[in-house]
Amino acid sequence: MNEIEALKAEIRAFADARDWEQFHTPKNLSMAVAGEAGELVAEFQWLTEKESERSELSAEKLADIELEIADVAIYLIRLTDVLNVDLIDVIRKKLAINEGRF
Amino acid sequence: MNEIEALKAEIRAFADARDWEQFHTPKNLSMAVAGEAGELVAEFQWLTEKESERSELSAEKLADIELEIADVAIYLIRLTDVLNVDLIDVIRKKLAINEGRF
Amino acid sequence: MNEIEALKAEIRAFADARDWEQFHTPKNLSMAVAGEAGELVAEFQWLTEKESERSELSAEKLADIELEIADVAIYLIRLTDVLNVDLIDVIRKKLAINEGRF
Amino acid sequence: MNEIEALKAEIRAFADARDWEQFHTPKNLSMAVAGEAGELVAEFQWLTEKESERSELSAEKLADIELEIADVAIYLIRLTDVLNVDLIDVIRKKLAINEGRF
Repeated sequence: MNEIEALKAEIRAFADARDWEQFHTPKNLSMAVAGEAGELVAEFQWLTEKESERSELSAEKLADIELEIADVAIYLIRLTDVLNVDLIDVIRKKLAINEGRF
Repeated sequence: MNEIEALKAEIRAFADARDWEQFHTPKNLSMAVAGEAGELVAEFQWLTEKESERSELSAEKLADIELEIADVAIYLIRLTDVLNVDLIDVIRKKLAINEGRF
Repeated sequence: MNEIEALKAEIRAFADARDWEQFHTPKNLSMAVAGEAGELVAEFQWLTEKESERSELSAEKLADIELEIADVAIYLIRLTDVLNVDLIDVIRKKLAINEGRF
Repeated sequence: MNEIEALKAEIRAFADARDWEQFHTPKNLSMAVAGEAGELVAEFQWLTEKESERSELSAEKLADIELEIADVAIYLIRLTDVLNVDLIDVIRKKLAINEGRF
């Protein structure tokens, strides 16, 4: 089992233990991804492109950004779980399409 | 090397081959994640929660959703690359925080 | 009647004429706002801050941006309609809060 | 002067008084719109469509939603200011396009 599948199972167990399955419809999870992506973009909104680089970020700011990245990823992985989609597979499929397009 | 690291290297090579590194600042990539998350949520906006479930989706709609999920993931992985962040690590860190919180 | 109220009535009539009221729940309209905001941010994602200024934008790019701004506004106004919220009032209320905060 | 123009001037004065003009590039403001739209959609993510209706919302939840709507609107109006775009005009233009399309 790859690491994404391991995380998927862990996130599922976490949701199940809290009876959150009822809330985790694909529609709702797509909203959660969008909400967290909004928090991620907000971390960068007043930084210049230069200031957004790793070397320019304070340790505290970087930690905040890392947690926002994680939040997006967690809901995205949860969404692939309830939709029974293989995340690695769909990424590979999309990269192949991009190869042909650009 | 895990699969996410393999994808990260592949996405980086794709960007480099097109001279897109100049555009791929953390700030810009956070915008790309938000933009793709907007497309993902748009796929679900007029569906009921029930209609958003895998068993209710047409093959075509599911394929569209998969590609939007992939787009969010690709830019999120690219963002972790330019920030030199380990995606699996930060997810584990955030899940540990969530365990303590909920 | 102010202009926002006039637009609100017009947008409502447009939705009613197409039997879209059933889709226009507050939840769904919040998703539409997020989806259109994603398209708006995507217009700017590969531009530098300087390139994003009015004087640097081509007429065509500016027209695209204007339409994305309008899409966000249309769904936001529609959301205030179904929630029976006065947009001008809530903006004034929030600006007053901001005055005290910053 | 219509109410949107009045709000535009007020929001501009607020930003100027805090020396925020330097941060308020169109690119950055599009990010702020997306960030606030993310907070708006997050208010609704675990509600059913029925629960999202005005009659079902608590006074406190409605107040939270109103402030998120206001935040999206404030940054959208600020964006139209720095781009020198007439919001009412572009909404009318987009509604005319929609009339022809649907």
